[in-house]
Amino acid sequence: MQILLTLAYEGTDYAGWQVQPGRRTVQGQLERALAAITGEPSRVTGSGRTDAGVHALGQAAAFQTSSTLAPEVFQRALNALLPRDIAVLQAAAVAPGFHPIRDAIKKRYRYVIRDGPVRDVFARRHAWHYRQRLDAGAMGRATAHLLGTHDFSSFETAGAPRPDRIRTISEIFVRRSSSGCRDQIILEVEADGFLYNMVRAIVGTLVEVGRGARSPDWVAEALAAVDRGAAGPTAPPQGLFLVEVKYPDHIYISQPPP
Amino acid sequence: MQILLTLAYEGTDYAGWQVQPGRRTVQGQLERALAAITGEPSRVTGSGRTDAGVHALGQAAAFQTSSTLAPEVFQRALNALLPRDIAVLQAAAVAPGFHPIRDAIKKRYRYVIRDGPVRDVFARRHAWHYRQRLDAGAMGRATAHLLGTHDFSSFETAGAPRPDRIRTISEIFVRRSSSGCRDQIILEVEADGFLYNMVRAIVGTLVEVGRGARSPDWVAEALAAVDRGAAGPTAPPQGLFLVEVKYPDHIYISQPPP
Repeated sequence: MQILLTLAYEGTDYAGWQVQPGRRTVQGQLERALAAITGEPSRVTGSGRTDAGVHALGQAAAFQTSSTLAPEVFQRALNALLPRDIAVLQAAAVAPGFHPIRDAIKKRYRYVIRDGPVRDVFARRHAWHYRQRLDAGAMGRATAHLLGTHDFSSFETAGAPRPDRIRTISEIFVRRSSSGCRDQIILEVEADGFLYNMVRAIVGTLVEVGRGARSPDWVAEALAAVDRGAAGPTAPPQGLFLVEVKYPDHIYISQPPP
Repeated sequence: MQILLTLAYEGTDYAGWQVQPGRRTVQGQLERALAAITGEPSRVTGSGRTDAGVHALGQAAAFQTSSTLAPEVFQRALNALLPRDIAVLQAAAVAPGFHPIRDAIKKRYRYVIRDGPVRDVFARRHAWHYRQRLDAGAMGRATAHLLGTHDFSSFETAGAPRPDRIRTISEIFVRRSSSGCRDQIILEVEADGFLYNMVRAIVGTLVEVGRGARSPDWVAEALAAVDRGAAGPTAPPQGLFLVEVKYPDHIYISQPPP
């Protein structure tokens, strides 16, 4: 049986998703908990890696098991065994041959910026504190240039070998919202796939616009340059959340999520 | 000159407000930062103590200084020197003779409960995770018995020597709100003063009602018993926030808060 997990985690105290010798990773914690439940070594495959300090509201990960435990039993047992900063939100049986990377249709990320001179002590692990007030309207206008199908080389850190750097952003917006007594700026972006550090590079670029150093139209130039040096810096990890990984309905054998 | 600070802090990594030898405390961090700024030893007096793990959105604390630095300079310098989990939200010059405990008119606390089977990994430091869904309506009805002037002995841990245990709750409510994709229950309570652990004892008592073990009217009986054993258990610290300490306007020499 193959089971697909929907996971939330706070990435602060992890060296990222992927297992690395001697480091605390989300994948490593999951594999350890699963082995304790099933008594067999388990390999967990994520929909993709998240970096150290990056969070998930809805990461997807799958594992094969010879156990006949129901998915909801796996969910409860994993939540009992996992550290407090990882939670299994859902567990569902999926079709044989399902692969969490190949079968993903879309992913959605959120980035949170707290802008203002005084830090919010409760948001320091879950947002980028930017000391200057940003123009969220200008940042929002700049995102229009990124919508659609483009070569996003200007927004990829280093160059992993890839067939191409063309991706389609189907939704992207910036809005100012209030959380408690504080203002924050939220960026959300949905695409068929993301290059390495792409969201953080987009945020770092939009902040150049938000702080008034560049115009919204400069983002079109930065994109067209197909050159990482043409865009803005990479925003720090603690503001980034993997919100959702979307799969086609037909992969689910049990419990398609609502 | 005497300066009044409005402070936010995340209490998770502190042994509480009050200086204790060999322990990391909020008062200790403030006194160390102030001494570094002024070059003279400084004693900071809070409006009251908060326990280990309890947070503040608006604690008040005052200090005397022979320095002529403006309050806003103290604010910036303290924010630069203090750890990331303490922030000075405001600084104002106050009248000679002002005392942060004696002159407080009212205090307001908030308590946050996340109720449901799966924990929220992002709220674990800032809320009580209660694994069962609670009836917020019944908890709200129960609060009506606590409004007004009463002897709150049933809601005080241990017995500090005090002239009396009569306090006046001027506002108390429970509401269910959504935070992100999750539900939460918020209790807010304002009074002219609070006994030791009073809010946490009230919350633990209301949860007995919320989980269906007791009726809302039982809270009236628990209050009337004037006996800690008659009420519910003490809720854990991580859900508690000191929201505000109110002072009369005449104490301010500069910058009365908005």
